[in-house]
Amino acid sequence: MNRYQFEIIRNSVEKMLDQGAQKRVLTILEKLHEADIAMLIEYFLPRQKKKLFNLLYLNNVTLSSKVVSELDSEMAIELLKGMSVDHISKILQEMSTDDAAELVSTFPKELQEKIIETMRAKDSRDIQDLLQYPEDTAGRIMSPELLALDENISVTMAIKTIQKKKDVETVFYLYVVNDYGHLLGVISLRQLLLAKPKTLLKNVMNTDVISVTPVTDQEEVARLVERYNLIAIPVTTEENKLLGVVTVDDIIDIIREEATEDFLKLAGVGEEDISDRSVIKNVMGRAPWLFAAWIGGILGAYIISTFEHLLQTIIILAAFIPVIAGMGGNVGTQAATLVVRGIALGKVNVERFWRVVSREVAIASALGILYGLSLGLAAHFLYGQPIEIGILIGVSLVISIIIAAAVGSMVPLILHRFHIDPAIATGPFVTTAIDVMGIFIYLMLGSTFLL
Amino acid sequence: MNRYQFEIIRNSVEKMLDQGAQKRVLTILEKLHEADIAMLIEYFLPRQKKKLFNLLYLNNVTLSSKVVSELDSEMAIELLKGMSVDHISKILQEMSTDDAAELVSTFPKELQEKIIETMRAKDSRDIQDLLQYPEDTAGRIMSPELLALDENISVTMAIKTIQKKKDVETVFYLYVVNDYGHLLGVISLRQLLLAKPKTLLKNVMNTDVISVTPVTDQEEVARLVERYNLIAIPVTTEENKLLGVVTVDDIIDIIREEATEDFLKLAGVGEEDISDRSVIKNVMGRAPWLFAAWIGGILGAYIISTFEHLLQTIIILAAFIPVIAGMGGNVGTQAATLVVRGIALGKVNVERFWRVVSREVAIASALGILYGLSLGLAAHFLYGQPIEIGILIGVSLVISIIIAAAVGSMVPLILHRFHIDPAIATGPFVTTAIDVMGIFIYLMLGSTFLL
Repeated sequence: MNRYQFEIIRNSVEKMLDQGAQKRVLTILEKLHEADIAMLIEYFLPRQKKKLFNLLYLNNVTLSSKVVSELDSEMAIELLKGMSVDHISKILQEMSTDDAAELVSTFPKELQEKIIETMRAKDSRDIQDLLQYPEDTAGRIMSPELLALDENISVTMAIKTIQKKKDVETVFYLYVVNDYGHLLGVISLRQLLLAKPKTLLKNVMNTDVISVTPVTDQEEVARLVERYNLIAIPVTTEENKLLGVVTVDDIIDIIREEATEDFLKLAGVGEEDISDRSVIKNVMGRAPWLFAAWIGGILGAYIISTFEHLLQTIIILAAFIPVIAGMGGNVGTQAATLVVRGIALGKVNVERFWRVVSREVAIASALGILYGLSLGLAAHFLYGQPIEIGILIGVSLVISIIIAAAVGSMVPLILHRFHIDPAIATGPFVTTAIDVMGIFIYLMLGSTFLL
Repeated sequence: MNRYQFEIIRNSVEKMLDQGAQKRVLTILEKLHEADIAMLIEYFLPRQKKKLFNLLYLNNVTLSSKVVSELDSEMAIELLKGMSVDHISKILQEMSTDDAAELVSTFPKELQEKIIETMRAKDSRDIQDLLQYPEDTAGRIMSPELLALDENISVTMAIKTIQKKKDVETVFYLYVVNDYGHLLGVISLRQLLLAKPKTLLKNVMNTDVISVTPVTDQEEVARLVERYNLIAIPVTTEENKLLGVVTVDDIIDIIREEATEDFLKLAGVGEEDISDRSVIKNVMGRAPWLFAAWIGGILGAYIISTFEHLLQTIIILAAFIPVIAGMGGNVGTQAATLVVRGIALGKVNVERFWRVVSREVAIASALGILYGLSLGLAAHFLYGQPIEIGILIGVSLVISIIIAAAVGSMVPLILHRFHIDPAIATGPFVTTAIDVMGIFIYLMLGSTFLL
């Protein structure tokens, strides 16, 4: 469905809903892909969202739970909020285990327990199994529904088994296990088709299986899937017992999510979302990040005010405070961003600490000299300032840029070393610190050499 | 292979290379996955990279071309650079068509032609077919190697055909076409296994196929694959003739790439890469972005200097210039980033222009009042400034924050409307403009009300 078609459908569904033509709306919805219904809901106004979803739920539970799987979790919670525990359980038990677990985990503890109690025993057990693992790990996103067959089964038997197991949603690989459920190998459906019917699975399988444990970080899982071009990756215990499988569609979601998270941190917006969150929630999400800039500003103002005598003597120095602070901040952000992204892509690591930092400092030195010189010249010629003021401005810029690059590249590496998310370093905290440092160096040098 | 194993292998390979134990190195390499060899090369020092790659190429062309497919294109070019046209062609023709085309497209025109001339006719034709499409489109990343079968073939026949076609690398779906090569439907291997042997493909296939044209933007392709949880998406002409298929591993690369690009633009680093580019190239990549900040700084200095009289009278006002400029810049970046990311994720569009902008302005108003008030109070109580200076500082901050949010959210939407990459808006250009505006408003208000 392209954007044009989507807009037409959106408009007609909106009108029909307003006119109360529920049957016709339902007929349209049932012809759409669940992902398109989810998008429809996301584009609707809040009151219409609920109306549309309730209509769907009351007439087609299966489809409504498919739609919930496709929604942003925040939106899904929004829609489920007012519903009874019974209804929520019904929707959840039709979802795939990993999606259901993800959703349940976002509910308040009390509600979680009630929902799990109300669900079918098998489903609730599966969900609880997943919830025992920490957030953002493979265990949380794996699906326990997979095809695992014994190593001593023949290819023909394997095909027969696949034909029977219709409930396993996406099967591209077949996992081969021994009597103890230990993972021995993997076979793609394609290979199964190519193999001779009577061969045993153990003689067809690839034994070089890339797997993760349930506590592997989801970013690491994504990196492996990406590096080895996998469609799915098995999850096993330390003892190699097969627990589940993480599929590539979940990986794509993780990559998007992690990129968005890093992106928002860089902008100093916290973990916010573009979706229709209330203005108040948005304000609360962004305020703490601005607080860093605010504190930095107060501190900067304090520093500047202690150099009042200097500024009163040479008032023009005040005019160059913003550019010295600002360019330092920019260079610091550049360095921090490259290092953070490098860490995220697995290309930068702590072992290369000095190599990374010295490279950033070298680059910054060149940039600093380039812009320091031109700023000094600009101050001298454009503003007719005496040469020593031009030199002061130029030198201050060089120093603050170099410090900025050193701090900007070191902080994320250090955070990463101590298992703290390095993306914090790109946010306003570090930039502000760099700003303040730049101001201090500038005024310090000024009062030392010009007074 | 985990990081620990990787480090061990890296160290031993490095040592062996230095000792000239090439045979042993080769034995190790041939046991590794091509992606691991690629990573090994990326982690090596420049002179060792070439040594390792040449060793591989001279002894195992197939493996060396697999490795090239896994390398960053910049790194791949670096390695291929010094080689003869003959050698490059040999490597390229062993690669998958889309990877080879991507690489060829980065060579200078003259070299491109020479390489294509030297290659086997079929390969060079396939590559030229792909290169006729614009950059960053589906046509460039599709693989022409796919399984397309006639609608009137039986399931048994289809399975036999699959068994014969061993060269098609990743087969999870089978595409069904008519006599004219028009795409009619798709069947997963799984469905093929479940179907009765004598059924005709046209009676098993799903006719609801999501496809793209060769000129569809790759970001749009990625969004479709993501939304509908696909493993591959077929590419057809406007007339529905099947041309190729884009697989999910390419999609993952695109998502990573696009995120990195946006990320680097946000940090004002251009299209740089973390890889071992020379310091000079890095400086040249970053310098233009800093130029925006530099020009802004010069402009800011000019504005400030025109208010010299005001500052000389009330010197403390100078102390608050950085915080007013800085916080405005921060809020502008927050707004711009959210809008840019929203556009990238397909959640924000131009039709919602006023809704998006007014939302950002509402949020900024709340943030502005919060921080404006506290900054004003801080100036009054912490610095003992008269109440009117506190009011001036507070009000200026409120206004500059609101303008920042309006500009920050409008610019990316406008850029997007005119098909310019909105991510530019998050870079230093807009931030700097906002900074300068903030300074001007502050000093303007000051000289109007306090002099």
